[in-house]
Amino acid sequence: MAKYDDIVNLALRRGLFYPASEIYANAPAGFYDFGPYGAAIKRKMIELWRQELVQKEGMLEIDGAITMPADVFKASGHLTGFADPITKCEKCGATYRADTLLEEETGNKFQEAAPVEELTKALREAKLGCKKCKGKLSDVVRSSLMVKAEVGVATKSPVYLRPETCQSIFCDYARMLKTMRVKLPKGIAQVGKSFRNEISPRQSLLRQVEFSQMEAEIFFDVDKINEIENFEEVERYKLRFLMLGKKAVEEISCKDAVAKKVVSGKLIAYFLARTQQLYEKYGIPSESLRFREVGKDEKPFYSKETWDFEVETSLGWLELVANNYRTDYDLKGHAAGSGKDLNFVEDQGRKFIPHVWEISAGVDRTFYAILEQAYKQKDERVWLSLVPRLAPLHAAVFPLLSNKPELTEYAEKVYKQLKGCYEVFYDESGSIGKRYARMDEVGCPICITIDFDSLKNKDVTIRDRNTTDQKRVKVSELGNKLFSLFTGASFEKI
Amino acid sequence: MAKYDDIVNLALRRGLFYPASEIYANAPAGFYDFGPYGAAIKRKMIELWRQELVQKEGMLEIDGAITMPADVFKASGHLTGFADPITKCEKCGATYRADTLLEEETGNKFQEAAPVEELTKALREAKLGCKKCKGKLSDVVRSSLMVKAEVGVATKSPVYLRPETCQSIFCDYARMLKTMRVKLPKGIAQVGKSFRNEISPRQSLLRQVEFSQMEAEIFFDVDKINEIENFEEVERYKLRFLMLGKKAVEEISCKDAVAKKVVSGKLIAYFLARTQQLYEKYGIPSESLRFREVGKDEKPFYSKETWDFEVETSLGWLELVANNYRTDYDLKGHAAGSGKDLNFVEDQGRKFIPHVWEISAGVDRTFYAILEQAYKQKDERVWLSLVPRLAPLHAAVFPLLSNKPELTEYAEKVYKQLKGCYEVFYDESGSIGKRYARMDEVGCPICITIDFDSLKNKDVTIRDRNTTDQKRVKVSELGNKLFSLFTGASFEKI
Repeated sequence: MAKYDDIVNLALRRGLFYPASEIYANAPAGFYDFGPYGAAIKRKMIELWRQELVQKEGMLEIDGAITMPADVFKASGHLTGFADPITKCEKCGATYRADTLLEEETGNKFQEAAPVEELTKALREAKLGCKKCKGKLSDVVRSSLMVKAEVGVATKSPVYLRPETCQSIFCDYARMLKTMRVKLPKGIAQVGKSFRNEISPRQSLLRQVEFSQMEAEIFFDVDKINEIENFEEVERYKLRFLMLGKKAVEEISCKDAVAKKVVSGKLIAYFLARTQQLYEKYGIPSESLRFREVGKDEKPFYSKETWDFEVETSLGWLELVANNYRTDYDLKGHAAGSGKDLNFVEDQGRKFIPHVWEISAGVDRTFYAILEQAYKQKDERVWLSLVPRLAPLHAAVFPLLSNKPELTEYAEKVYKQLKGCYEVFYDESGSIGKRYARMDEVGCPICITIDFDSLKNKDVTIRDRNTTDQKRVKVSELGNKLFSLFTGASFEKI
Repeated sequence: MAKYDDIVNLALRRGLFYPASEIYANAPAGFYDFGPYGAAIKRKMIELWRQELVQKEGMLEIDGAITMPADVFKASGHLTGFADPITKCEKCGATYRADTLLEEETGNKFQEAAPVEELTKALREAKLGCKKCKGKLSDVVRSSLMVKAEVGVATKSPVYLRPETCQSIFCDYARMLKTMRVKLPKGIAQVGKSFRNEISPRQSLLRQVEFSQMEAEIFFDVDKINEIENFEEVERYKLRFLMLGKKAVEEISCKDAVAKKVVSGKLIAYFLARTQQLYEKYGIPSESLRFREVGKDEKPFYSKETWDFEVETSLGWLELVANNYRTDYDLKGHAAGSGKDLNFVEDQGRKFIPHVWEISAGVDRTFYAILEQAYKQKDERVWLSLVPRLAPLHAAVFPLLSNKPELTEYAEKVYKQLKGCYEVFYDESGSIGKRYARMDEVGCPICITIDFDSLKNKDVTIRDRNTTDQKRVKVSELGNKLFSLFTGASFEKI
């Protein structure tokens, strides 16, 4: 728990993230804002997902409205099936999520999908009362997670804020077929906001009412689940599985996972590999990652096969990406609900509803996991060892002393040169130690300092965030240094 | 009107944008989705704003929650002051915006801020009835534009979806002061979704319920409104003003606009210039742009000085950016509402509430304006002459014929090389003319075609989207060509 608190404190201290509308005492729980450095890290994290998953895999990325009519969620099953088990104090009105309350108070783990009768029974057996006033708790009932929006003075049908971005993808699939020359398999992806009416939002970014997702839905021909281009690129790559009922992770190559029927086909193994690889690029070592097989009781109602991609954190294993085999559930539902033909028509004339493999990543949770992974402490010093592509700044430029015009002038020149191409921060006030500390804590990979020798020798001191090592570099080499650091490329190697 | 229809048709044909949840017959009006090419153009448009305005001006960019508690909007004045004048048919219940209905039916322009009594009187004088059933229309009343969200089973205070992104900025200002070493003037910026309960959403992207804004709030010391760094960079730059009551645009340099008191100070002239320059970079010629002075009756309730930045379109002059001098209205309101001290404290100890200059740009409207500007037609051919930085693709690669393996193989090689660094589209099927047309219509600047000569000479044909000119270029030169096109830089000039 300590590390979680460290992260939250760092976030408040440096404005990485903090409760939304925080100046208002009665701002609701479950909403967070990202400050400048946090927003930059989040943006770069999304950009890496876009480059490594969406663009490399030739997916189509859409950007859909958050608000959708009730009919969409009737068809998707959310209006009836998407609800938390809650219990309410009959005396003071305090409301609890029954499964969470039971776990907190009894230490036993309960499925949120467990029947309400079972949860009520457990509540009674444990003789639980209201945590606040000890009043009697009601029988457990289901409370919808859908957030309704009051739109339109004369709207006929109620509208909701989507609980998952993929519903826009399913609704837009017909337009993609019509306009984008789709060949299967084809991913359609989206990053954006979703809303869930959590009864007890908690743990800051980890369980919010308003949150962001980056989702990819891969549409494919179920008869060709074993035909996927570039499979050879991943066939020896090892996936880390935690099988149902097992306690230890097993490393299995994509090829073996298919051969041993751990997964339903090559396409699934391929995208599990791409997902694990993305998180390794985020700087999370594979030892801290696993695909947990999700059992029947716990699986979402639409999924045939689910692997929760989890990361090990100070709070335990945390789900970052839900990988669901949604089959033709959604397209069939929307075809029935809308009366539209959502068949895919092959060149040869064969018609069918594609199946869907879903890679549903939580943006905020991924952000938290990256921060926790990057958070380092040694004595008093705290730094974020973010991979260069996620660093909110490329570099900082400091004159060693602020009251020497010749230093500040030269430092500003260096700053302005770099600013044309890089995100650079200039700071001249306060002790150099405090200026370093500030940059370390937001993960800025290098600090460039100008002292009196710099004026003579046309060089600067570069300080490395992770090691605090310093070395002198000619000003004329700065462009190359930054270029190498951020692209991995080097002119020296040409 | 014709061009507007052309754009909407193009958008549907190529999936640039289209109604959200469109497969459902009763999907509400006022919500749009962006397809892959539209989303890419929008994203690049936002990125240009970020680079040219936010980053160059050293602003802080935040990313705040859409949902905010009622108290925020009590303090901002939106809960009482932000409402449309509506009239309802007493027979069939159809609802109209009174000012819009009056303008449509009588041709006279009415202010949406006009007193309801005045609008009722005009309605009666014009003897207007319901457009659908000719029933009697009610007296005009104000209908709130705020969208309420039903969040939390036990939430004490109602929550709303923000009607403008800047409210997150005002609420986060205190956190910025605490964590970001703010010196005035300092811009805080944000791009994100906002919601307004439009009574009659219309004209696709131009008046939606859910829409995006890119806003910048510049906090400054009112005593130093004439102290702004780099003013000399813009002092001779000409702003295009349409003064109150005037019919013609006057071009006035920033320096003169300050001297002649057209604007309240240098800071305002400076940011008007930066705004106009941004839109020139978007590819809109300055002749189609103007700052319209907004009179007392029409100004938002919080503004002391307002310039609506407008673009000339086929629908008339369209507001893209509201430039408002919000003074200390918002921070004072939130200080009173939250009980927090929102004073800025200078090094010398002077305390004061900063004033605010707002640059509030509509993302969707800007997107539309860019599309209309870029839309070109010559006989049957349609193309989007987007500036390179806004093009959704960098290039397309085509083998001239699809049934010749030696061509497709070579074309795929070229494609894969470029894909490492650029957003490239590969297409091998259909006539070459249709493939060109598709790329022209989404604004892809160059098409690269591989024919039999390419195999012999290791060269390709590059076709220019705007001119359709073709020339042969060595494959080894392709990297340089694309680099020059998209950065404006050239190795040849070194």
